[in-house]
Amino acid sequence: MAEEGKNRITVDIYGEPYTIVGPEQAGHVRMVADTVDDKMREIKKNNPNLDTKRLAVLTSVNIVNDYMKLQEKWDQMQENQRKEED
Amino acid sequence: MAEEGKNRITVDIYGEPYTIVGPEQAGHVRMVADTVDDKMREIKKNNPNLDTKRLAVLTSVNIVNDYMKLQEKWDQMQENQRKEED
Repeated sequence: MAEEGKNRITVDIYGEPYTIVGPEQAGHVRMVADTVDDKMREIKKNNPNLDTKRLAVLTSVNIVNDYMKLQEKWDQMQENQRKEED
Repeated sequence: MAEEGKNRITVDIYGEPYTIVGPEQAGHVRMVADTVDDKMREIKKNNPNLDTKRLAVLTSVNIVNDYMKLQEKWDQMQENQRKEED
């Protein structure tokens, strides 16, 4: 999302501006940024001593974990569909 | 993933140790950590001047973007299935 395309959108995440360059529309980029901001604040609430760098890394860990769970559900559903088609 | 459960697993992400506490198995946590580490290095390659905090935030942005795309595919598939069942 960060390298290609034409749109340059500046968003605020955890109090700092980030310019995102990519093909996505501004509304989508803002929704993504808000999600990251929300997750960071949620994790910070439970881990108040984390500095921002470690907080951001742990936010990535949480999101990748969520992604993998959704990916597993997706793979399982594809597999079930293949079985039904046999 | 970071707060509940019994397993305490220490992983290395971008050269620093993180202790992850949660219900997930060690192998899964290591896979998640490796994915975050890979993504950070990939984004750093394209943005060599980023400091680690901003790199970690942009990594979160990229992963949330991927997550939302997969979520859309998932929602679309659920919708198609509902239509087929009608």
